[in-house]
Amino acid sequence: MPPRACSIANALQVIGERWSLLALREIFFGVRRFDQIATNTGASRDILATRLRTLVEAGLLEKQRYNAHPPRYEYVLTDVGMALHTVLLTLMSWGDHHVTQGEPPTVWRHSCGAELTPRTVCASCGDEVHAPDLTLVRADGLGTDE
Amino acid sequence: MPPRACSIANALQVIGERWSLLALREIFFGVRRFDQIATNTGASRDILATRLRTLVEAGLLEKQRYNAHPPRYEYVLTDVGMALHTVLLTLMSWGDHHVTQGEPPTVWRHSCGAELTPRTVCASCGDEVHAPDLTLVRADGLGTDE
Repeated sequence: MPPRACSIANALQVIGERWSLLALREIFFGVRRFDQIATNTGASRDILATRLRTLVEAGLLEKQRYNAHPPRYEYVLTDVGMALHTVLLTLMSWGDHHVTQGEPPTVWRHSCGAELTPRTVCASCGDEVHAPDLTLVRADGLGTDE
Repeated sequence: MPPRACSIANALQVIGERWSLLALREIFFGVRRFDQIATNTGASRDILATRLRTLVEAGLLEKQRYNAHPPRYEYVLTDVGMALHTVLLTLMSWGDHHVTQGEPPTVWRHSCGAELTPRTVCASCGDEVHAPDLTLVRADGLGTDE
């Protein structure tokens, strides 16, 4: 039987590898060049090159030439890649609360002037989403525990 | 130079592997037993066993015995694991919009009665967070492109 069809699985086909997400984090931070992304993430150059190529092919990043002789490129987010900021912020928030010891290492300011605390809400009612408030309505039909 | 200290990196030390997140997805869906998690994710049994052990050690899951003879266990989310629902929902939403072809395979209903569309907002002003509205205030001090 094939595994459950699911957008989480589909998303992880594209970004389900830590070096991919860490590279995307750097580009969100404004770091665009291979050497600095490698330094800031700690990724090996071979793995990073492979991950960046995959992200370009998947349409999350574009390579832009910033130097003609010799040819040099930097990485910029497409709209699809940019839309991942919610995933990165939510992951950061969970890490701040449940993994990182001490103060959050990274702080963002929102355009309203406040330091950003991201919150996941229901678009319909605006209330914060808590796991017990959710009921599964539809999922690809794979078995549950008997 | 060590890589950038960051809660995204810290979080990915725990859950930065697609089989870990897919196993957590199943447990959110209410599937608690090894065989069914393996079937629904498509993970190999060896890899799944390793990932579940890591998640138990990291405090995201607990093993509970549901049968004495022979001893059989199921996996339940701790509060720390449960808090990851925001990450899974945000990842699902991005996958629905940018990767999955066709209708979203998974639909949740919120307690307000609406089908859930998760939205990431600023806790202070309540506005949806868009990437251009964010300014980096503090980050571990690693270089940017020169």
